[in-house]
Amino acid sequence: MADMVYRVQDIICQKLAEFDDVEYREDIWEREEGGGGRSRVFSDGKVFEKAGVNVSVVYGTLSPQAAKSMGGGHVLGDEDLDFYATGLSLVLHPKNPMAPTVHANYRYFERGDGTKPGSWWFGGGADLTPSYLFEEDAIHFHQVHKDVCDRHEVADFPKFKQWCDDYFYIKHRGESRGLGGIFFDNINQASQDECFDFVEDCALSFLSSYIPILERTMNLDYTPEQKDWQQIRRGRYVEFNLVYDRGTTFGLTTNGRIESILMSLPLTSRWEYCHSPQEGSLESELLQVLKNPKDWV
Amino acid sequence: MADMVYRVQDIICQKLAEFDDVEYREDIWEREEGGGGRSRVFSDGKVFEKAGVNVSVVYGTLSPQAAKSMGGGHVLGDEDLDFYATGLSLVLHPKNPMAPTVHANYRYFERGDGTKPGSWWFGGGADLTPSYLFEEDAIHFHQVHKDVCDRHEVADFPKFKQWCDDYFYIKHRGESRGLGGIFFDNINQASQDECFDFVEDCALSFLSSYIPILERTMNLDYTPEQKDWQQIRRGRYVEFNLVYDRGTTFGLTTNGRIESILMSLPLTSRWEYCHSPQEGSLESELLQVLKNPKDWV
Repeated sequence: MADMVYRVQDIICQKLAEFDDVEYREDIWEREEGGGGRSRVFSDGKVFEKAGVNVSVVYGTLSPQAAKSMGGGHVLGDEDLDFYATGLSLVLHPKNPMAPTVHANYRYFERGDGTKPGSWWFGGGADLTPSYLFEEDAIHFHQVHKDVCDRHEVADFPKFKQWCDDYFYIKHRGESRGLGGIFFDNINQASQDECFDFVEDCALSFLSSYIPILERTMNLDYTPEQKDWQQIRRGRYVEFNLVYDRGTTFGLTTNGRIESILMSLPLTSRWEYCHSPQEGSLESELLQVLKNPKDWV
Repeated sequence: MADMVYRVQDIICQKLAEFDDVEYREDIWEREEGGGGRSRVFSDGKVFEKAGVNVSVVYGTLSPQAAKSMGGGHVLGDEDLDFYATGLSLVLHPKNPMAPTVHANYRYFERGDGTKPGSWWFGGGADLTPSYLFEEDAIHFHQVHKDVCDRHEVADFPKFKQWCDDYFYIKHRGESRGLGGIFFDNINQASQDECFDFVEDCALSFLSSYIPILERTMNLDYTPEQKDWQQIRRGRYVEFNLVYDRGTTFGLTTNGRIESILMSLPLTSRWEYCHSPQEGSLESELLQVLKNPKDWV
């Protein structure tokens, strides 16, 4: 798994560097309690306002609090607090408000020595967060992920799609963070090899799910008002990540590398008091879909 | 208490309106489960990027989760989930990066019928969050609050100052949100009248603690780089409020009015990957104090 996420990080970063026409900054870091990672961040490029692609391979002993926010291994309770976790996590925030933000994450988790039932599992997913709705993009993104799921018996697209809608939900706003995609956790219902194959296939399909959308939207015209709306949507992104995201909570409570964890936050964001888009506007059209998630495929 | 916070809201808003040369927007709102409030927000004025002064008077039945995040009435446990809460809460974010953000909050809480020991208490405080350090401002702000505490037997400035430093601490950054001030909770060690007098004195002293600082700094010259630093500090403000602030958590889990709760967030904020100010710079001087809170008076 660790080999795979490093390899996929290389593939994805090479492609993004071509687009962005800029070198990424790389930081190789170590975690005092065990393990470390490799963060790569794009900024001031042609296409991305901020984009990060992180690998981490960490191990050690969980606090009971961190064990709770891990989102897996429910069967273990307070036993086996020793853990090993590795994953690839990326968040890309394009400059152009017509081009959607995307997030993806592929991870493997082990507690104790990984031999007890329920002591290892895979998780992951990918989801799309536009400021403006282009239905063809939503369909394309979901279709690629459905195709991946359909190739693996351990995967269940309708379930993972629903899980994504449920997970990336900003409860206090009554709206989804974005248009969803797939989300899965506690994947261990087949052999480790079969589970791994599915997660690897997801990771290798990321570029084909997102790059065509980026190419179509990254040079579209936009107004300053549309840029403001993007900034407001980025504020919602911040709200979700800091209030609800388990990965963020987990990182903040396990002495993770803060700059790598919060790399997911946008470069800039905006909170206008009582902002409400005009009825019938493009902005209000997006909100409708965020309040009523759709089946895109 | 409800009368007092409405009255002080009027006094403060009148003064801010003079400064900002703009009318505030007022929203009177009701909470489905009981009570409501009056929010006043300044935007697009001369001085403030965003400033809100809120009153809320809410009551109903707490969820056990909300009861836990209330930060008081520890003696009650899961009993007496009926509650009554009223308070004034304000956050002022000036445009000029030399002028500090300020927050203040004065509140009263009751559980059950308020007759059991520990079933009512006052809380509150005020704290200053500059992007640039002016020692004279830090001293003035703390001195005013020390003077208020010294006038009331129920108050203990050194304790409340320390409480403020401990509370407004961004654990994952290892730094304070700002320069502190006072923070207190569970105040019920004297009669209700004595406790109320102290909290009212705090509320009535707010303007004298902040306005002289604002007057001195709001028209100082600044560079675009200094504005960027202010935006980065605002990012930290967002991190504290969404990750740690109990008032925010309480509001988000009790179906509070979201726009009033999140009014505390700045208009705009910024997250640069691995931003680190130059050694010896003004920015680094501020960080030093945030990492090592000082006694200002």
